[in-house]
Amino acid sequence: MTQNLQPSSNDESSEPIVVASEPDKTIVVADTEPLVLSSGQNLGPITVAYRTWGKLNSNRSNAILVCHALTGDQHVLGPHPLTKRSGWWELMVGPGKVLDTDRYFIICSNVLGGCMGTTGPGSINPVTKKPFGTEFPLITIKDMVLTQALLIEKLGIEELFCVIGGSMGGMQALQWAADFPEKVFSVIPIAAAARHSAQNIAFHEVGRQAIMADPDWHGGEFLDKKVQPERGLAVARMAAHITYLSETALHKKFGRDLQDRSDLSYAFDADFQVESYLRYQGESFVNRFDANSYLYITRAMDYFDLAKEHGGVLSAAFQKSVSRFCLVSFTSDWLYPTAESREIVRALNAAAANVSFVEVDSDKGHDAFLLDEPDLFQILSGFLNGAARHQGIAAP
Amino acid sequence: MTQNLQPSSNDESSEPIVVASEPDKTIVVADTEPLVLSSGQNLGPITVAYRTWGKLNSNRSNAILVCHALTGDQHVLGPHPLTKRSGWWELMVGPGKVLDTDRYFIICSNVLGGCMGTTGPGSINPVTKKPFGTEFPLITIKDMVLTQALLIEKLGIEELFCVIGGSMGGMQALQWAADFPEKVFSVIPIAAAARHSAQNIAFHEVGRQAIMADPDWHGGEFLDKKVQPERGLAVARMAAHITYLSETALHKKFGRDLQDRSDLSYAFDADFQVESYLRYQGESFVNRFDANSYLYITRAMDYFDLAKEHGGVLSAAFQKSVSRFCLVSFTSDWLYPTAESREIVRALNAAAANVSFVEVDSDKGHDAFLLDEPDLFQILSGFLNGAARHQGIAAP
Repeated sequence: MTQNLQPSSNDESSEPIVVASEPDKTIVVADTEPLVLSSGQNLGPITVAYRTWGKLNSNRSNAILVCHALTGDQHVLGPHPLTKRSGWWELMVGPGKVLDTDRYFIICSNVLGGCMGTTGPGSINPVTKKPFGTEFPLITIKDMVLTQALLIEKLGIEELFCVIGGSMGGMQALQWAADFPEKVFSVIPIAAAARHSAQNIAFHEVGRQAIMADPDWHGGEFLDKKVQPERGLAVARMAAHITYLSETALHKKFGRDLQDRSDLSYAFDADFQVESYLRYQGESFVNRFDANSYLYITRAMDYFDLAKEHGGVLSAAFQKSVSRFCLVSFTSDWLYPTAESREIVRALNAAAANVSFVEVDSDKGHDAFLLDEPDLFQILSGFLNGAARHQGIAAP
Repeated sequence: MTQNLQPSSNDESSEPIVVASEPDKTIVVADTEPLVLSSGQNLGPITVAYRTWGKLNSNRSNAILVCHALTGDQHVLGPHPLTKRSGWWELMVGPGKVLDTDRYFIICSNVLGGCMGTTGPGSINPVTKKPFGTEFPLITIKDMVLTQALLIEKLGIEELFCVIGGSMGGMQALQWAADFPEKVFSVIPIAAAARHSAQNIAFHEVGRQAIMADPDWHGGEFLDKKVQPERGLAVARMAAHITYLSETALHKKFGRDLQDRSDLSYAFDADFQVESYLRYQGESFVNRFDANSYLYITRAMDYFDLAKEHGGVLSAAFQKSVSRFCLVSFTSDWLYPTAESREIVRALNAAAANVSFVEVDSDKGHDAFLLDEPDLFQILSGFLNGAARHQGIAAP
């Protein structure tokens, strides 16, 4: 996911917002006994890389867990250590922002299987002393959330005021609500779904095949060979990136405009701005992301099916829920269309949960949750303020 | 494009329909003087591979040119010489079918740049005596149509009764109407557009990058090296294939059903049927298609912009048109959505052309034009029968 539509985007040129932040930290969890994964395999100890902003209040009631999407990480605010660019949710998080760092204690950790410090396929396998590669066990959204729960426990937080995330972050929020109903006061899944559709799986499979087709992937052992399957990973990113934008957004931003030329080249150059933009997305991605993490995390998303875990009945996932839910979808999101959110809302209603749902009118596509969407900010602010009053969290 | 949604599709198992057909033939055009391409480059002589069905009547008024789509070819009816499967439009063409071979003389030629016998990047460059590869000049939809016009001329046909095609075939039909208004009595563009959108270009660019990222592409000189960039071409096909189907079609056909297993593998196998299906689409495609042709033809489609050729005014393209038009779009086609057809209809209306337009309610996506869509057959039958009466073509 990106924050902007242009290679010369403002998340590159703008000054990073300075917020008092703890530096990137790590905690080791599943150290005394390993985590039993959904696959049945054991994994541990697990290093979790995370960052926090703001202060935990005295009764530890103001913690918000931000869950990142497929290619996101714990760097909600920047500068990002690899790209030096600002964080992926600067518009949402900060002093006076919707996730107000003067009021809340914000936590974001790199997911299990990730490549920004949390244990993943690029980590050293303690048995072989080499990077795991495809020896790393398959993980699920449930496993990611279990790992986060261990982190939260180590941080001494019994109940999160809120779990919030967009896309795969929204899936994690839903999984939190299902698996730890007593630990989440409120839940905000944005542009999410309770299961991956055939089309979602299909696009991910294209990306995985592109990576595995690259000879530099070396059956997953590329780190050992000191290479990266850069071309395959770039193609995977390009294909996925199209799905994050609406046709309207692509049309408005690029149309058929040419890139640095007055006429067609009649060659295979990037004649069109949209080609140049996509190539840039692919090329810049490989500098900050691990190809195996991409395989594992897309697989976790494809496996996600919250109803299946509950006998095929989605409402059963929320039977014990006492959380307040706020769901948001976007009209032009064709990757996780509104119908997916409605299905979750129906299940929550059937479980007599406290739920509000808004479909935001936006032409920005799936990535709208990362972009400047005043309606989104207003909806979330209203919801969070109400929830904070009920939870007795002091206004800043 | 495929005819069916399943690997074990009926176009594999069904008996090919036997229609009296001339075998695959070739004609050499642009032999006395080369064709001046849109790029300004010259190309010639050009071999055109084509097939015909039915009989040309005595006043040569019953010829229908069928234009194929990106990955189609002249084998409208099968068996296909490489795949041994039935042709791509057996549902539409044959005795008593919409394109009735007892009434009409059906012609279909492999497009310029193709790989089924017509001159393309896999042909021998007369200068170097080696395959052209990327030395082949960039071609456009206009160039394809010019080549077809030379073929039609050599066949002694002054006016086509109809030019019909879906997707890229529809683009060719539109180009015929614009460039040879006096040579086409009727025009049927199905699921087409007057220009490629940013999203269309983006998907094609992903495919091209996948091919060019494959080391076996060898800068386009793979034929010389006796290899094919199979992995890259397969990924390109997989990505494109998703765009040919609607989300509903994918959901209905596959959903989250597992392939030959009762539970998830927790590995990178093709757990889901949709994955297995896509892999099959990719793998089977490379046996019948040339990677460079894929590059050249997608580029031709991306360059297509009929308004641009006419001062940015689409209606100007049809100013001299006396043809009867019938446009068809499909509700679930998100690759060339109905809005694209409407834009063409508006331009035709502005040019006071004779036009009918129907949006067919279908959940099959873009590929609906290749599938069993009774509404489509009925609309085209009605239109063609009316046109045939006006043109004095005898009923069979």
